[in-house]
Amino acid sequence: MSELTHFRDGQPHMVDVTDKAPSTREATAEAWVRLPPEARAALETGTNPKGDPLVVARLAGLAGSKRTADLVLLCHPIPVTGAEVQVSLEPEGVRLWARVRTAAPTGVEMEALTAVTVAALNVYDMLKAASKAMEITGVRLLSKSGGKSGPYRAQE
Amino acid sequence: MSELTHFRDGQPHMVDVTDKAPSTREATAEAWVRLPPEARAALETGTNPKGDPLVVARLAGLAGSKRTADLVLLCHPIPVTGAEVQVSLEPEGVRLWARVRTAAPTGVEMEALTAVTVAALNVYDMLKAASKAMEITGVRLLSKSGGKSGPYRAQE
Amino acid sequence: MSELTHFRDGQPHMVDVTDKAPSTREATAEAWVRLPPEARAALETGTNPKGDPLVVARLAGLAGSKRTADLVLLCHPIPVTGAEVQVSLEPEGVRLWARVRTAAPTGVEMEALTAVTVAALNVYDMLKAASKAMEITGVRLLSKSGGKSGPYRAQE
Amino acid sequence: MSELTHFRDGQPHMVDVTDKAPSTREATAEAWVRLPPEARAALETGTNPKGDPLVVARLAGLAGSKRTADLVLLCHPIPVTGAEVQVSLEPEGVRLWARVRTAAPTGVEMEALTAVTVAALNVYDMLKAASKAMEITGVRLLSKSGGKSGPYRAQE
Amino acid sequence: MSELTHFRDGQPHMVDVTDKAPSTREATAEAWVRLPPEARAALETGTNPKGDPLVVARLAGLAGSKRTADLVLLCHPIPVTGAEVQVSLEPEGVRLWARVRTAAPTGVEMEALTAVTVAALNVYDMLKAASKAMEITGVRLLSKSGGKSGPYRAQE
Amino acid sequence: MSELTHFRDGQPHMVDVTDKAPSTREATAEAWVRLPPEARAALETGTNPKGDPLVVARLAGLAGSKRTADLVLLCHPIPVTGAEVQVSLEPEGVRLWARVRTAAPTGVEMEALTAVTVAALNVYDMLKAASKAMEITGVRLLSKSGGKSGPYRAQE
Repeated sequence: MSELTHFRDGQPHMVDVTDKAPSTREATAEAWVRLPPEARAALETGTNPKGDPLVVARLAGLAGSKRTADLVLLCHPIPVTGAEVQVSLEPEGVRLWARVRTAAPTGVEMEALTAVTVAALNVYDMLKAASKAMEITGVRLLSKSGGKSGPYRAQE
Repeated sequence: MSELTHFRDGQPHMVDVTDKAPSTREATAEAWVRLPPEARAALETGTNPKGDPLVVARLAGLAGSKRTADLVLLCHPIPVTGAEVQVSLEPEGVRLWARVRTAAPTGVEMEALTAVTVAALNVYDMLKAASKAMEITGVRLLSKSGGKSGPYRAQE
Repeated sequence: MSELTHFRDGQPHMVDVTDKAPSTREATAEAWVRLPPEARAALETGTNPKGDPLVVARLAGLAGSKRTADLVLLCHPIPVTGAEVQVSLEPEGVRLWARVRTAAPTGVEMEALTAVTVAALNVYDMLKAASKAMEITGVRLLSKSGGKSGPYRAQE
Repeated sequence: MSELTHFRDGQPHMVDVTDKAPSTREATAEAWVRLPPEARAALETGTNPKGDPLVVARLAGLAGSKRTADLVLLCHPIPVTGAEVQVSLEPEGVRLWARVRTAAPTGVEMEALTAVTVAALNVYDMLKAASKAMEITGVRLLSKSGGKSGPYRAQE
Repeated sequence: MSELTHFRDGQPHMVDVTDKAPSTREATAEAWVRLPPEARAALETGTNPKGDPLVVARLAGLAGSKRTADLVLLCHPIPVTGAEVQVSLEPEGVRLWARVRTAAPTGVEMEALTAVTVAALNVYDMLKAASKAMEITGVRLLSKSGGKSGPYRAQE
Repeated sequence: MSELTHFRDGQPHMVDVTDKAPSTREATAEAWVRLPPEARAALETGTNPKGDPLVVARLAGLAGSKRTADLVLLCHPIPVTGAEVQVSLEPEGVRLWARVRTAAPTGVEMEALTAVTVAALNVYDMLKAASKAMEITGVRLLSKSGGKSGPYRAQE
């Protein structure tokens, strides 16, 4: 089923948040990059020819959070006022984690998800000479706070 | 382990492909968005207040493939010469699929992966009023062809 | 007369609105794309090979409103807080209509005009295989409200 | 009629031009900005407080032609290899004219149309303090050459 | 010494200014382009084939100030609310000067520095057919005001 | 002298390189950031609160080279096919060095200059909490090769 012709009265639009007062918002998100043995080896031995994937991922994720409204067509442009990205090599793969904060009339869930996703794409790019079988997985919102809909926390 | 201090001689740089002749390249990729029941219901009943997520995802993925070099710090800017994104609602969730083609000295794996990833982020954005527990997963390269490293096909 | 050398003391600059308090602003705009018979037929019969121009125009216009400050050199970057684009096929051609809202120290006239203009360019692009003689016309501000200069409404 | 549900088999995609050889392409386009008396006076007397609209329009149009693929969702990114924008004050209003050239597998009609359209939006922005009743009109392709579809020339 | 491995606990992040109240901020900056005789002659005689470098530099600097957060990876996106760029030909070369203003929780030093730097790059580009030995120099913050750290004024 | 009214026949335009065949081009450039003692200390002791400036500068410079055509209004968009940025702490300050390569009908001088300039702006941003008196200086083209105008090498 590739078409939803029943969206007759709900055509795409950017939600109107003009009349909501700005308030402090925060969101955290994570993503994983699963590493086949060749990709893990290139990371662990420091022999990856293109450089250190974790440093690149971290900075790309931070920069990526600022491009969210360019990528997500109906997303409001938000003045990000704080962002942190952590990248770590774990037994299950590379873990990407981001926290984004703002003072705005709408939340920064998409900014946090974009940060970890863009970071993950950069991990792939840095290691793709070692293996093309990496997989980005587990991209999810961990928590959000602020706003009328209240706090959210992902289940374990 | 969050730091790879042994990347002494492999500092990040953009791989030099200047002397490679342009040739036809193609890559396909897929991603999935897992849907909690509330998100699936908003899709299936056509009552999602922000509009049809599948149409938005498709166009956002196509546009996103053109932003790859903005997001992936060490990625070469590539003149995409053909792109197709398919979005479908399946029992397991929303499936995003992309094929990107070019005639260039380097491949379009990152463009295909960026297309499906950006498409998936747009699905999340469109449905996040229904559920914040959606998860983007299974982002992987399905195939590539062209270039010196030869064809690649993901295992089932 | 292609040069206005008398602009001696009025060299281009971005107007200073730093000291104006943010307030609710809204602007609506419209544009038309005149369709030669071949273009209209491609639309009406649903046989246009590149896909549905109206859906693409709508989303491109929404996304375009967020790029206004990139295109209009002296325009302030504005955090758009609401945007709606309508695209309809009328006897005179395709009508593009946009409403943009913000809470900012300056107005969103340029955002609304950019939305309909970018939407119209996308209609042209989608249908140009059918006819290159389409014409974009009647791009104008329909109304604005908010701000010191007061409301504006276009004459019929 | 705001919906074309019959576009079942023609979902939006970027046309595949991968296998077309690059060739020299050129397109010219024009646009007009109709000027109410107050806007014309601000131009002619050189008293427009924001600076000279014609100079800004010219440069914005040139820069805008490079943003075409960001704005037109299904447009191929094209390496513009030459661009010229002329802006002149005529009895009927401000005339914007652009010529864009490239050596690519597809044409630059959209780049030329984007150049004049973006230039026109900048004229509006520069003069909007004088009048909000300006109208952008007559945006059309004047000519194209190169490519399989052969030359095109607009009728007078 | 090309590596600072001792930055263990200070990994790059965007400073969190979420809880700071917006206030009026202003920064001024300058830059110089030193001109070899051939470049100066092309400017003074008005024979530079690519057009007037000073006009282009001025507008490019204004536009560039809006791209700061795209270029400076850890810089907050700031809604510039006023910007002015002056470009003048002096005995020592071309002087670029910028003032940027905002009402935001953090300052606009980077926006002012980016404005003059981008303006200087455009001077180079416009005159590089005359000489490639131009040098951009003296890029510095002249003053800032607003914010907790108080005013700053460069020494003569 | 802030105006060059004699640029009557040389209005700004993008130079037409459509008919030039692509060939291998390379450019190298450098820039310096002069460090007051407080900024140098923050670097050398690894106590800079915002993280390691040299790593950020390197990646920002690489990414910045891809944004050249967005910043330099009349610059051709060039598909960068190789880029390297080196950042080192020297007795005189931070030295930024870049090499950019392409196969294109025009050169990459502006891309190399943009890379070092953007890298330098990032050094400033990372260290500005320690000192605002840093100065970017000595931004110059070191060499270029390829193209009709032949090789260039800066004097010592």
